[in-house]
Amino acid sequence: MRTGIATVCLSGTLKEKMQACAIAGFDGIEIFEQDLVTSSLSPEEVRLMAADLGLTLDLYQPFRDFDSVSEELLAANLRRAEAKFRLMARLGMDTILVCSNVATASVDDDGLRAAQLSRLASLAGEHGVKVAYEALAWGRYVNDYEHAHRLVELVDHPNLGTCLDSFHILSRDWDTAPIERFNPDKIFFVQVADAPKLSMDVLSWSRHYRVFPGEGQFELAKFMGHVVRAGYSGPVSLEVFNDVFRQSDVERTAVDAMRSLIWLEEQSAKWLDANPSAAERPGGAGGTGRRRHPMELATLPRVAEPAGFNFAEVRAADTGALETLLAQLGFGFNGRHRTKNVQLWSMGHARVIINEEAPAAAETSIAAVGFDVDAPVIAAARAQQLKAPAVPRKNQANEEVFQGFAAPDATEIFLCQGNPDGTAAWVNEFGPPGTPDSSLATGGAAGPNAGAPAVIDHVNLAQPWQHFDEAVLFYTSALALEPQPYAEVASPSGLVRSQVMTTRDRGVRLVLNLAPLLMQEAGTETPGGPPLAGSPRRTYQEHIAFAVGDLVSTARDARARGLEFLRIPANYYEDLDARFDLDPAFLATLRELNLLYDRDADGEFLHFYTATVGSVFFEVVERRGAYDGYGAPNAPVRHAVQYDHLHQLKLTA
Amino acid sequence: MRTGIATVCLSGTLKEKMQACAIAGFDGIEIFEQDLVTSSLSPEEVRLMAADLGLTLDLYQPFRDFDSVSEELLAANLRRAEAKFRLMARLGMDTILVCSNVATASVDDDGLRAAQLSRLASLAGEHGVKVAYEALAWGRYVNDYEHAHRLVELVDHPNLGTCLDSFHILSRDWDTAPIERFNPDKIFFVQVADAPKLSMDVLSWSRHYRVFPGEGQFELAKFMGHVVRAGYSGPVSLEVFNDVFRQSDVERTAVDAMRSLIWLEEQSAKWLDANPSAAERPGGAGGTGRRRHPMELATLPRVAEPAGFNFAEVRAADTGALETLLAQLGFGFNGRHRTKNVQLWSMGHARVIINEEAPAAAETSIAAVGFDVDAPVIAAARAQQLKAPAVPRKNQANEEVFQGFAAPDATEIFLCQGNPDGTAAWVNEFGPPGTPDSSLATGGAAGPNAGAPAVIDHVNLAQPWQHFDEAVLFYTSALALEPQPYAEVASPSGLVRSQVMTTRDRGVRLVLNLAPLLMQEAGTETPGGPPLAGSPRRTYQEHIAFAVGDLVSTARDARARGLEFLRIPANYYEDLDARFDLDPAFLATLRELNLLYDRDADGEFLHFYTATVGSVFFEVVERRGAYDGYGAPNAPVRHAVQYDHLHQLKLTA
Repeated sequence: MRTGIATVCLSGTLKEKMQACAIAGFDGIEIFEQDLVTSSLSPEEVRLMAADLGLTLDLYQPFRDFDSVSEELLAANLRRAEAKFRLMARLGMDTILVCSNVATASVDDDGLRAAQLSRLASLAGEHGVKVAYEALAWGRYVNDYEHAHRLVELVDHPNLGTCLDSFHILSRDWDTAPIERFNPDKIFFVQVADAPKLSMDVLSWSRHYRVFPGEGQFELAKFMGHVVRAGYSGPVSLEVFNDVFRQSDVERTAVDAMRSLIWLEEQSAKWLDANPSAAERPGGAGGTGRRRHPMELATLPRVAEPAGFNFAEVRAADTGALETLLAQLGFGFNGRHRTKNVQLWSMGHARVIINEEAPAAAETSIAAVGFDVDAPVIAAARAQQLKAPAVPRKNQANEEVFQGFAAPDATEIFLCQGNPDGTAAWVNEFGPPGTPDSSLATGGAAGPNAGAPAVIDHVNLAQPWQHFDEAVLFYTSALALEPQPYAEVASPSGLVRSQVMTTRDRGVRLVLNLAPLLMQEAGTETPGGPPLAGSPRRTYQEHIAFAVGDLVSTARDARARGLEFLRIPANYYEDLDARFDLDPAFLATLRELNLLYDRDADGEFLHFYTATVGSVFFEVVERRGAYDGYGAPNAPVRHAVQYDHLHQLKLTA
Repeated sequence: MRTGIATVCLSGTLKEKMQACAIAGFDGIEIFEQDLVTSSLSPEEVRLMAADLGLTLDLYQPFRDFDSVSEELLAANLRRAEAKFRLMARLGMDTILVCSNVATASVDDDGLRAAQLSRLASLAGEHGVKVAYEALAWGRYVNDYEHAHRLVELVDHPNLGTCLDSFHILSRDWDTAPIERFNPDKIFFVQVADAPKLSMDVLSWSRHYRVFPGEGQFELAKFMGHVVRAGYSGPVSLEVFNDVFRQSDVERTAVDAMRSLIWLEEQSAKWLDANPSAAERPGGAGGTGRRRHPMELATLPRVAEPAGFNFAEVRAADTGALETLLAQLGFGFNGRHRTKNVQLWSMGHARVIINEEAPAAAETSIAAVGFDVDAPVIAAARAQQLKAPAVPRKNQANEEVFQGFAAPDATEIFLCQGNPDGTAAWVNEFGPPGTPDSSLATGGAAGPNAGAPAVIDHVNLAQPWQHFDEAVLFYTSALALEPQPYAEVASPSGLVRSQVMTTRDRGVRLVLNLAPLLMQEAGTETPGGPPLAGSPRRTYQEHIAFAVGDLVSTARDARARGLEFLRIPANYYEDLDARFDLDPAFLATLRELNLLYDRDADGEFLHFYTATVGSVFFEVVERRGAYDGYGAPNAPVRHAVQYDHLHQLKLTA
């Protein structure tokens, strides 16, 4: 598959965009007119630079409001087009995108439209230019890709074809199956964009909210499958208007974009395999089963979804408070690593590594998450092909080598060989546990919990706003997690957007939180003045949640060991009672132990939170029945109490 | 008019919200349930604190999904309601908001609904509670305020009335005139919110994009006029769900909110005067003309819109570059102020003050803008009543005293007595011009321009994203400017939102620019890492534009004096020619002088930009015909070239 991207997807100047596209590995680019008009590079210099960078110049775009106009306006439009055809010759480009008319269309007549497009095609032919005509979703008269294609067939000129843009097609919910019947010679170009499903006018949606494939909700693999089956073999090019990408680091966004195409290529091949056409079915008209298509789709190493969390790692300069918290929760100290400055703590199969190698001033934070995968080396190869930046880790002989990558928020992600019984071989590199830092440490016993041993239930990571969509694609493509519908939770500092990513069997639950902007920025704001400069790192708190079999007894034990619970306000329990009509004794237990509660049609959820150390706190949960949520109705309580604590700390500081 | 605000409008804890509301001067508040549930304050403490702060507790809200349900669910809902009624007794509150059912409604029968509401009203009566029933715009069966009112009439119980929320009514485009015929005893509460007109699902629109009155596009004065004429005299309370306000400084947002109600009160009185009912018209059934209503509407000192710009002030630590630029543009040096460290430069009636009193490290920036107003003292009193923060300026005897206020972006706004001929009396405080800093200074002559003398055409100010809506209301209410439809302009650093505020005769044009977030933040971002901490102040450039009668000769003169123009790329002129088919000689002149050009049905626009000093540059424009824009199609070129310069500066630094 030949990969392309429109320059409008990226920030910076034309030169910066081209360089970033080359570095990210794109085959070609679309030149968005405004990027050329505002550039100090001459068309000849652009042509030369593209050649030097190894980029083909695939599409000049957009040419607007050509068709369905009066004869007088048509003459002006042809004159305007000819100026662009001459410019394209200087650029060495041969294909131009012509969008269906939005603004100046006044005559709704397919015969006239075809005649006008025919004149354009003839003129283009004289200049060696191919016109790719596209139905904009909000075109005045032409807004359906099949309509645009009918016009192309009607004109039947070698210099007129159509451009298929997934956004314009899928935003209108048009069926994509008819694409298969298109003459591939008449498909001059294919553009892909994903988008979240929003109920808003399609123009605003298109101009601001498009995202790269895998970051939205469109069925792009299906769209691409039909395109491939039509016999199209030209570039598949991203055209994504997005307010955030337009301002983010250009090289990083280009890599995110490239990752989305690599992933889409694999998903398209999968879709084709899973949805054979009649001709492709064994015994079908095609006879031989799977058909080869002109477009070759590269595949990635296939991996199963991760089975669970292998460990979570917290980095701290002063580890004392963390050790105390874990010990009070019932974790046992399993000793120090033979060669690294890290400690291992565990409760059942929940393993927490405390990394002591933080710089003195660094805030305690979640540094890494390990996942159990079938074949770490293959999974790592897949991540690498998806351009995940590798994390080097020094290892001694006889130590397990973890394959590691940096997630978009800089958390390190490790791919580990998990044992089916939930244990991990590398724990033998730790020990002896002879010198527990905390006298409370129980030595790794599972504790008095009934049922299955404790595990990591979910990990909740704060995401920088510029990299939220990138993170969704990263975990989707490199780790095979699936994004769930997102939730919005009120906090005293603003709304928090919470995007859960899970495996199908819920062995892994990762929660990506998008904190309010002001919590991501400098921090405090002074009334009447600009925000003060401050910590450049996130101020939003992250956490690790452990699932246990009997939350009430875990909480009682932790209280006996002196755990500082997050204190839940009395008003909460009154509201809980009003909502759920709880058994008074049960309600009293919840209140006594600062437990939170939720219930839905699937089951019940009990949980509690610890105090915060640095930017990290812990949660312990018990899932009853098939409850699949995270206690979202309780999150505002948690946020408010944490805010209160932080605020009181500031006041007393 | 009794003013109120729902706690959900603001950031922080319940305690912080209540304090901020009291400081901002609200009469009462609505308690948003979640704010109480998450609070560590007991209901009794909240009641006490409200009394101490002088705030009435006007409405407990929301109570959701009561009506149109099965008998079984109704019993649970009544139980849930009774718990809230008991809680309200502890809070000392007597009115609760009950929203029409969205989620659990299953029976669409007005008779049954009325019977269920009647049972709720009876129960409420036993607890001394009044139920204000509101039609949510997205209610399953009840989503029209007249429907809700009909149900209230049908039930006819003293403890059941309706709540009118401007958002739920105006988002659906319901006619508001029928409100006048409502029995005022059945209107238990009135909530107001404004909103920009967006084409999106009404729930998302409501939950994220509401703004305070005057910051959106709803006809709120008309809505309020009908409410007043109905005879309602209870609280008028803000209920604004807004993602930005939820995270902004609580005290500042509360003041913004209060300003919006003060302004709405005045606008409502104006609407009532301008739209008399049949009974109020002289000779009408009412007989005596204007009728008094139970709700008394306070008015503000009335002022005419400003006639023009009196001056603009730029503050700089090193003023040399600024002086050179102004002199090259044709400005004359009019000397230093008698007692202050400021210089006056002028060209025609365009006056620029260079303030030398910047701290050494400060970047050159636009510090103040002066407006010509009819009666500065009255205009200042109006601004003060609208809670604009006053700016103290030291003045000596015999010097003109400017009334000054800080705009939301901290720019100082001065209200000046302008002369009808465009001159200003205070210039006599400057001089003598004997020691021009630049040998180029022409001494204030208007230069060789044909036509009217030069004036300030517009001033373009960058706005922090947290205060953009606040700024629109500030200039609307305190300065009587009118917001125009906004534009979005592409720059290499992202989209810039450009909100023009003008007087009706265009004597004042102020452009509020919302720069991309990353330009407002720390500045540069490192690939793979978090943003670096940096300058806390805006990095986006601002400018002052001067209008002249003959731009070409102004540009030639400036070039002769050595002015450094912003260099426009050759590609721009080719595109211009393709678009406008310009006379070759004219095009050559544009190209030669780095002039930009735009044309629309109303006229033509020529303009050029200077190089940037600190964060400030200048623009000179010529308006031909009735052209009313700002050359928006050219703005991306300007941004790209400025970005290039900045980037090259960084590379060579």
